[in-house]
Amino acid sequence: MTDSGPAGQHTVRRHNCALVLDAIASSPGVSRAEVAARTGLTKATVSTLVDRLVTASLVREEGRQHRSGPGRRGTSLSLSPDGPCGLGVEIGVDYLATCVVGLTGEVHAEHVRRFDNRDRPPSRVLARAARELDRALADTARRRLTVGGVGVAVPGLVETSSGRVIDAPNLGWQDVDLATDLREHLPTLPGDLMIGNEANLAAVAELEALRHRDEDTPDSFVYVSAEIGIGAGIVLDGALFDGSHGLGGELGHFPVQPRGPRCSCGARGCLERLAGQDAILERAGAADVDTLVTRLDAAERPAITAVRSAGRMLGSALSAVVNLLDVTTIVLGGTYARLHPWLVDPLTAELTDRLMGSPWRSVEVRRSVLGAEAAVRGAATSALRTVLTDPDTYIARRVQAEDRTTNSVGSRIDGGSGSSPAS
Amino acid sequence: MTDSGPAGQHTVRRHNCALVLDAIASSPGVSRAEVAARTGLTKATVSTLVDRLVTASLVREEGRQHRSGPGRRGTSLSLSPDGPCGLGVEIGVDYLATCVVGLTGEVHAEHVRRFDNRDRPPSRVLARAARELDRALADTARRRLTVGGVGVAVPGLVETSSGRVIDAPNLGWQDVDLATDLREHLPTLPGDLMIGNEANLAAVAELEALRHRDEDTPDSFVYVSAEIGIGAGIVLDGALFDGSHGLGGELGHFPVQPRGPRCSCGARGCLERLAGQDAILERAGAADVDTLVTRLDAAERPAITAVRSAGRMLGSALSAVVNLLDVTTIVLGGTYARLHPWLVDPLTAELTDRLMGSPWRSVEVRRSVLGAEAAVRGAATSALRTVLTDPDTYIARRVQAEDRTTNSVGSRIDGGSGSSPAS
Repeated sequence: MTDSGPAGQHTVRRHNCALVLDAIASSPGVSRAEVAARTGLTKATVSTLVDRLVTASLVREEGRQHRSGPGRRGTSLSLSPDGPCGLGVEIGVDYLATCVVGLTGEVHAEHVRRFDNRDRPPSRVLARAARELDRALADTARRRLTVGGVGVAVPGLVETSSGRVIDAPNLGWQDVDLATDLREHLPTLPGDLMIGNEANLAAVAELEALRHRDEDTPDSFVYVSAEIGIGAGIVLDGALFDGSHGLGGELGHFPVQPRGPRCSCGARGCLERLAGQDAILERAGAADVDTLVTRLDAAERPAITAVRSAGRMLGSALSAVVNLLDVTTIVLGGTYARLHPWLVDPLTAELTDRLMGSPWRSVEVRRSVLGAEAAVRGAATSALRTVLTDPDTYIARRVQAEDRTTNSVGSRIDGGSGSSPAS
Repeated sequence: MTDSGPAGQHTVRRHNCALVLDAIASSPGVSRAEVAARTGLTKATVSTLVDRLVTASLVREEGRQHRSGPGRRGTSLSLSPDGPCGLGVEIGVDYLATCVVGLTGEVHAEHVRRFDNRDRPPSRVLARAARELDRALADTARRRLTVGGVGVAVPGLVETSSGRVIDAPNLGWQDVDLATDLREHLPTLPGDLMIGNEANLAAVAELEALRHRDEDTPDSFVYVSAEIGIGAGIVLDGALFDGSHGLGGELGHFPVQPRGPRCSCGARGCLERLAGQDAILERAGAADVDTLVTRLDAAERPAITAVRSAGRMLGSALSAVVNLLDVTTIVLGGTYARLHPWLVDPLTAELTDRLMGSPWRSVEVRRSVLGAEAAVRGAATSALRTVLTDPDTYIARRVQAEDRTTNSVGSRIDGGSGSSPAS
């Protein structure tokens, strides 16, 4: 959302409204007076804007602040758990996942459905995604939840500014205008539509989850996940780093064997062709990840060997990443999170072996706290980011759409197939 | 340089002095009044601080500002070409280079001397480096130049905060306290001592050179240089990115061939073992880079083949870097800059082949504008950075040391061997 033209009265209000909401979001429990002090706005302006945010259910007021010292105690302000939710959908190679997350991080619903999306025409996959989204919207309406925006996670290169999927080799997609196409399938999608790479979104979700749990959160880490493909998300100095066009964090096509087998991208010996989920399953002779884990638990040799081999290749590739970026932590997500107990030792050994200055520094290889849900969670929370960074536009749209929404929600409830959320 | 303790009067002056100098450095030609407006300091404070900076030859006042409009025209302020210089030394595997650079970027002297530093004890190499530095100091004294600080470029992992070289495999150094050891060899070294990785310093020098020339400067790029080893420096959003401990940008030990030849780092099939200067020379059957270039000019097959092979391996490794970091530009420095005409095509072909989304984006592979001098230039200018970020401490030290300096410069001039600067 960018401003254009000179800063008029509306632009100023938009800016100040965002300032006030940011002050409240980053310090839950603040008073109006404290928000005024932090933002440099007058108390009168803050009060007007807070009232607007409270009416729109973005902010909640509670009792009196617990604070000693002189002066009147203020009302305590925080993000509202009754505020708008983010609706996320993840387009996996062999599944579609949806998730509804509230402003304060609570997960209202999560749903995963198996679909073979590989080499299907984008329109067919998007029709499925639209049905899943519609189902989730009907469910939120039934629970009287408002959806503030929709986020889509895609296993491929996404130009985030335009919502265009440039290349998703494992889906067989190239140059798909996903934002436009998805809206054609489901014109009733509320709020802004945010399209992102699944690993980047997962990395952001992981960062938020770690901060939320008050765990020792590394400032910089590389999140690596495997499903059919391998994705990575880079967090530097506490924020996602995704490069000049938002295309950064691609690790799946790291060259591991110069004369290795041909990959879906056209090149040879890529990491995901040799150490991705399919390669591990094939080498272990297991039909799916559940079977693989059962065999690993039973310490069956082919399963152990397959995972250890993938761990070494992953460790070698990650040594190059750590030598380049000097991050302290690797977080394993997706299928790698499930395989962490068997993967971590060979991976760490190879990584350390190739790490420059390794006797004087080390790298921690952690398991993701969110696991397979990270990407769809990230899609849902990223959808809320436009509400949080531009609450005034959200409020204005909501006022305009109030009547229409009431009608269409009614028809959606009638037409919905009543899926119940898993999780 | 970090402040400690509560902000006393001295701390405030230090801070304000740095603010004022920064305002002048980033807008050459500003007036006192404009500096006051930019920094938020009073005109009286700015005037006192500017006088202090002018007395110390950090800032120069010139005529009247060329400005139309009402009000008194101010004196135009800029960094002084007569101010302190940065003295840089680069410890190469087979050479030592020194360089003296002024505050406004002019190169006063540059000197390269061949030495075989490989597998020599650090004390022996540092004694050589101290002699080169002493020679350069004598030369600056003769020209009545003041040295504000000294920077050292090292081909290895450097913990910049402590000045400790953690690992420099091509020198055979591990855990060398270079800052302390070098001062023991040359206690008269003036100002702060800054130790850095050669490729990181070269990347910074390249960035400054591009900006200075007003050339189209990419916001983000990876600088890659080869001498005996291969180094890289990462510039993201217009600034050096060197990771959590300053150890980032290591590319030389990128795994190219899992079962390749053993590298100086102990691992197998590293990029610099296969595509570094020594590997190219060996494959081409050339004794040195000059011979190689002569044979390339004559289109001799073994020379061409050796460079093309290195180009493909470098391109493959760089595809992984660009897929990860989404930079738009690669800058080839050091020996690679000299080989650019023969290296660029196979390199770009392999890079593009493995670049995700390559039909929709491209990467430019440029030749460094500084070439082999980049690292020592970076060392020299980085030595000035402490003067620029904390001018007050520089001024205080200079006042204290004035008498001593006059004496020791005298003796150094007598004892110097009178090297003349090459460049």
